[in-house]
Amino acid sequence: MFNAYGKRAADRCRALGKPPYSESSEYLFRAYLSNEYKQSQHAVAQWMNQAGMTTHIDPAGNLVGRYAGRTKNDPILIIGSHLDTVRNGGCFDGNLGIMLGIEVIDYFNRQQKRFPFAIDVIAFGDEEGSRFPMAMLTSKSVAGVLNTLPQGLKDKKGISIEQAFKDFGLDYRNIQKARYYSENVIGYLEAHIEQGPVLESEGLPLGIVTGIAAQYRFQILINGQAGHSGTTSMNLRKDAMAGAAEIIYLSEQYVKEAEQEGVVITTGQITVTPGAPNVIAEQVVFSVDLRAPTDEKRNEFAEQFEQIVEKICQKRCLDHEFLIQHDLSASLCDKNLMSLLEQAIQHLKLPVRYLTSGAGHDAMILSHLAPTAMLFIQSPNGISHSPKETVRYEDVTAALQTMIHFIELKEDNI
Amino acid sequence: MFNAYGKRAADRCRALGKPPYSESSEYLFRAYLSNEYKQSQHAVAQWMNQAGMTTHIDPAGNLVGRYAGRTKNDPILIIGSHLDTVRNGGCFDGNLGIMLGIEVIDYFNRQQKRFPFAIDVIAFGDEEGSRFPMAMLTSKSVAGVLNTLPQGLKDKKGISIEQAFKDFGLDYRNIQKARYYSENVIGYLEAHIEQGPVLESEGLPLGIVTGIAAQYRFQILINGQAGHSGTTSMNLRKDAMAGAAEIIYLSEQYVKEAEQEGVVITTGQITVTPGAPNVIAEQVVFSVDLRAPTDEKRNEFAEQFEQIVEKICQKRCLDHEFLIQHDLSASLCDKNLMSLLEQAIQHLKLPVRYLTSGAGHDAMILSHLAPTAMLFIQSPNGISHSPKETVRYEDVTAALQTMIHFIELKEDNI
Repeated sequence: MFNAYGKRAADRCRALGKPPYSESSEYLFRAYLSNEYKQSQHAVAQWMNQAGMTTHIDPAGNLVGRYAGRTKNDPILIIGSHLDTVRNGGCFDGNLGIMLGIEVIDYFNRQQKRFPFAIDVIAFGDEEGSRFPMAMLTSKSVAGVLNTLPQGLKDKKGISIEQAFKDFGLDYRNIQKARYYSENVIGYLEAHIEQGPVLESEGLPLGIVTGIAAQYRFQILINGQAGHSGTTSMNLRKDAMAGAAEIIYLSEQYVKEAEQEGVVITTGQITVTPGAPNVIAEQVVFSVDLRAPTDEKRNEFAEQFEQIVEKICQKRCLDHEFLIQHDLSASLCDKNLMSLLEQAIQHLKLPVRYLTSGAGHDAMILSHLAPTAMLFIQSPNGISHSPKETVRYEDVTAALQTMIHFIELKEDNI
Repeated sequence: MFNAYGKRAADRCRALGKPPYSESSEYLFRAYLSNEYKQSQHAVAQWMNQAGMTTHIDPAGNLVGRYAGRTKNDPILIIGSHLDTVRNGGCFDGNLGIMLGIEVIDYFNRQQKRFPFAIDVIAFGDEEGSRFPMAMLTSKSVAGVLNTLPQGLKDKKGISIEQAFKDFGLDYRNIQKARYYSENVIGYLEAHIEQGPVLESEGLPLGIVTGIAAQYRFQILINGQAGHSGTTSMNLRKDAMAGAAEIIYLSEQYVKEAEQEGVVITTGQITVTPGAPNVIAEQVVFSVDLRAPTDEKRNEFAEQFEQIVEKICQKRCLDHEFLIQHDLSASLCDKNLMSLLEQAIQHLKLPVRYLTSGAGHDAMILSHLAPTAMLFIQSPNGISHSPKETVRYEDVTAALQTMIHFIELKEDNI
């Protein structure tokens, strides 16, 4: 029985990976507030209804399914993850956590089981920053931590967030009304693919997340001097591209050699100006994404990175500028909820593995609202944010059983 | 008197650096067969006429000014350089050589001096590949080395070269009719800014070019594996960007350490796919422009470069591909003409400095048609292909005097 439910959860993710739920049949992309997003909300709402939930779209554009408790005034347990995807992403990232939430409710609903708390399954809208240059806007709304409403956000086509809300049938000024209140929420549970290779390398289906890595996202500007590629001798150049290459390579080497679990550095974006093969680069702008299990480790490596940049730029007579784009502190999962997950996993006779999440998740934001727990599901080959992202049915089934047992344990533990 | 002519040549370049001769008033860009190009031909033709030349547009779209010899059947000495510019380039690159040609003729015309050869001043159309992805199309037409007519060339807006010719009032199929014949051409002289720092560093106004560097232009494709930037541990990555950075940095170091005059390597273009800060690069494509004074040196360094790429890609489990985009052999200037330039420079009591040109020039192509000489003019700060490109009036004047004396010497040397 559990096997069929686990398989259905994964298969529904696959179905959502294609048109009309994806911008293209060539690749998966579903941006927050897009038409594909609306189509997928229709499909998911239908599955929620079939599982015994009532549904609504909240003022932030999230789809919320409610499985009522025993009384109207019961507190709420939230299960959630995100419905949006990165461009050319995989279909399980985020989506699987929602589908598992629906299967959990379906299981209890078939038994007509009600709890002394309501369960809300939330399909968050923009964990990935898929449409506007700001991630986790919708979980921030729900957690009540969206203090100032960002103004002037535009998508790549130049459509403002205000207009996108209007086109979607919502009013952006109401986004903060999506919030829940701490006194009503007893916990948040998110199941998510690991998106990394740890569980697979140890042959484990599931892992318990202890917390989410601290992160810095920089944009680095390197300014050199343009010049003709054929006539400027090597020792007279101020080549912004060669400088950027040295920074990217040496900082990668530094992090590699430090060999500290969970410390990673990535450059995934780079642009060169003027950008012609026969012109020495005048300016290079590149992204640096640095993560570490704790704020202290992250700060230590960020400092080392800045020193590498400064040393290289000084040596090469290049100017540089740092822009911090994200500054996320590490967030810790709740010890009591972790212990419930541990009991649930032991109940399945599976080994217990605790690990840090290198990726940010809605759970990171929800931890400001309520005690938070996160369950990782093995990612074969450690691949995510790619069409090659996949899951094994048996692992999804194990996750479903763990979530069900977690909620049963939670009932005794409220 | 020479001072006024030298100043006028430089000032005319500056005038051509602005609208209606530039696409924008913010930056200089004049593409082959564009409206700005047509406007500048009108202005330059007028200056040619005032200097005593008859003018016409040849079948390749070059502007040709003729200063007749003594008889109709006299052979021809060609003075030339190019009228097109790179985007956001400087106003002296190419243009100065044409303006100096006009001043040379103006000088002789005022004295009613005729030679036993005609002098054609040619303003070439596309040395830079400013509109279509192919450089030196027009000097190739003139030199008679355009063996196969390239098909399907399109500009960035998708306009075909056939259509661009039509819009300009020409028929592309006639482009090869722009050719001259070796038996009629006694030489080609091109004055050009150095575009490098050598002359300035030695305090010299002028230099005699011995030849033009051999060049390879590669495009390198590096294929890795996309993945989430937060969850893929450093030692499990196949990061195409980190690999490209190592290649760019180490090959730059290799060339620097070899310290061979005239060997240069440049990456001026790079693109990353998918290109998001939180996704490990799956593919990086970057340009490599490699030049050396001789074909042998160029081949030696190209081989070293390929070994660096192969070693790094093997170590990092990355795939790679080389695409050769340009493969230009070194071209040598004519010894007799070089010696006439030397005498002309000595006549001005200036030091004689021979140097290789790292940049390609129309002269490289014209060397297939006739003995070729090239005169370099100091580039302050070595800057070119940049709005900061400039010249000193006194150097331009010295170049003008050298060219005049060169032609007078040529008369005795025909």
